[in-house]
Amino acid sequence: MSTTLTSTPEVDGFRMPAEWEPHRQTWMLWPQRPDVWRQGAKPAQRAFVEVATTISRFEPVTMGVSHDQFRNARALLPPQVSVVELSSDDAWMRDCGPAFVVNDTGDMRLVDWGFNAWGGLYDGLYFPWDKDELVPQKVAELEGVDRYVAPMVLEGGAFLVDGQGTLLTTEECLLSPGRNPHLSKQEIEATLCEYLGLEKVVWLGRGIDPEETTGHIDGVAHYVGPAEVLLGWIDDPDDFRYEICRDNLARLEAATDAHGRAFTVHRIPEPPWDEVAAGEIADLDVVEGSRALEPGSMPATYTNLYTCNRAVVFEEAGAASDAVAREVLERVFPDRTVAGVSAGTTHEIALGGGGVHCITQQQPRG
Amino acid sequence: MSTTLTSTPEVDGFRMPAEWEPHRQTWMLWPQRPDVWRQGAKPAQRAFVEVATTISRFEPVTMGVSHDQFRNARALLPPQVSVVELSSDDAWMRDCGPAFVVNDTGDMRLVDWGFNAWGGLYDGLYFPWDKDELVPQKVAELEGVDRYVAPMVLEGGAFLVDGQGTLLTTEECLLSPGRNPHLSKQEIEATLCEYLGLEKVVWLGRGIDPEETTGHIDGVAHYVGPAEVLLGWIDDPDDFRYEICRDNLARLEAATDAHGRAFTVHRIPEPPWDEVAAGEIADLDVVEGSRALEPGSMPATYTNLYTCNRAVVFEEAGAASDAVAREVLERVFPDRTVAGVSAGTTHEIALGGGGVHCITQQQPRG
Repeated sequence: MSTTLTSTPEVDGFRMPAEWEPHRQTWMLWPQRPDVWRQGAKPAQRAFVEVATTISRFEPVTMGVSHDQFRNARALLPPQVSVVELSSDDAWMRDCGPAFVVNDTGDMRLVDWGFNAWGGLYDGLYFPWDKDELVPQKVAELEGVDRYVAPMVLEGGAFLVDGQGTLLTTEECLLSPGRNPHLSKQEIEATLCEYLGLEKVVWLGRGIDPEETTGHIDGVAHYVGPAEVLLGWIDDPDDFRYEICRDNLARLEAATDAHGRAFTVHRIPEPPWDEVAAGEIADLDVVEGSRALEPGSMPATYTNLYTCNRAVVFEEAGAASDAVAREVLERVFPDRTVAGVSAGTTHEIALGGGGVHCITQQQPRG
Repeated sequence: MSTTLTSTPEVDGFRMPAEWEPHRQTWMLWPQRPDVWRQGAKPAQRAFVEVATTISRFEPVTMGVSHDQFRNARALLPPQVSVVELSSDDAWMRDCGPAFVVNDTGDMRLVDWGFNAWGGLYDGLYFPWDKDELVPQKVAELEGVDRYVAPMVLEGGAFLVDGQGTLLTTEECLLSPGRNPHLSKQEIEATLCEYLGLEKVVWLGRGIDPEETTGHIDGVAHYVGPAEVLLGWIDDPDDFRYEICRDNLARLEAATDAHGRAFTVHRIPEPPWDEVAAGEIADLDVVEGSRALEPGSMPATYTNLYTCNRAVVFEEAGAASDAVAREVLERVFPDRTVAGVSAGTTHEIALGGGGVHCITQQQPRG
């Protein structure tokens, strides 16, 4: 049983825990659309199997799948991954999924944001998005948790929280005309605070994919502990991200969190650009209204990693930079296993437009 | 997590509890197909809401719904009824659903029968039935219970168990060429015993709907307690059921159960025939391969009732016979509330081909 609440998490004493707090499980969605995932999504499905299998070494994983793909997903996934019918328009559980919130006595609820496929009719990536929009409510029913309906469009990849009152986000995304043009920056801050149980919003500037997520913060940063942030770093001044990461660093260095703490920032050198071959594009269905992928180079990132119980799951690039990234992560997460997913999987998920953080959503322990 | 088991419930010490044993919840499926349910299934949906609401007074109810109908079902059902995405080809959870089995230490598993829409290509009621076929596996994943796959076609409405070693069924259905023509009567008995944890199968003769379920026992009888059966009764010798119920009574009187007990049979006088108006047929979509409903009279029954926690839910006919039926039920179930669903609801579900027992499936307490 799940009821729809008319109060707010803040009023009711609920907050969204940090990703590093203990999880009950990880939610994912199964990729299948042939205009987003090449070759009828078969390589992407194997990639999602690798990610789910890796996470399932550390915590339970539930995969949401359409009826059409139920048998196939069940056959490809290992038995410890639960498979439930939960249809979606694509496979980005971070973005269309709920934000779980908890209170001090262990009760759990969730927040259902508006979702418009990263920009709606302004600059969204596909149409329609009616299945994605229902994902949080369906999860609420499956888990039997009550649901807050937040009066704003927001994706889970657009913000990071520490569970102690602070949220990080980017101006590029949250102030985009494709999200909540009717809300002022102050109104957006107030709504975030009300629905995630926060006291302070720290604004970075831009992300690295204006045409995809309009600059999600989970492509450039990861919250790794109280007042402690991992920031993707670029040393090549010809890379368009060179200025972006410096601006974001300057903002973090100038800021304090809800408890007045200065931020410790760990720079992680990003991998070489990922190459998209023309042949990979040829294997996509052409569908009007879906954004087409173009051949050439894609900026790759290590910061789209996922923190789960006892581990961090990060995307290998198959480059020398992997070893450096692993060193940084082992230093930043001394008590967690640093579990890599293969460069082939990383590449496949990147072709669809994201990474391991984008395709996962943690459910905290109640 | 749910794994597929290769042993049998009998070997593992599992049995299917009787319907009168305590339930964890009731499962139902939402009607929507316009070739089975008139007026785009809108009256049927209201009927299912009445049944679900009635049962939810006594135990939790989960309604499986396709994505297309999710918002509508959620809006029409009361909040205490859970709604989960679980698509099906129609709405008969008794027949396409699983049989839950338990052991003495409270573990729960389920049995997944073959399902072929009441007769497959021989005399089935629609094609395809691929969604129905996956319902038990999806329920296993939702509940995190392991699953036995039984090597025979069977619907839940084709048998009744006492949870103490005895099963009642009909020869008409289980020996039908549309079910398991490759199995002998002895092989069918053996498989039932293996997969439901039984010792004895008691065969009645025929049911009352050869063209629909091929004579399901839940249209003529209900197991109400150990060695105690409610049997639909007809006093009019011109009614085709007159001989059927006498033959079934004779068989029950001649039989003993797995514990050697003679059966106590309670006769319940069936209501007048239900009338199908031509206008009700006109509101059905015409779909090739689906059995068409015909105007005229349908035999109605009180025995397609549902036993849930602290109650029995029975279908009123809107006739004087209702008071007699209620008296019988109050006598047979002295410790349960006798909860009627309205004649309008009964009629609507009958138009689709069944009753409250057909559209429900109990999950026992573990």
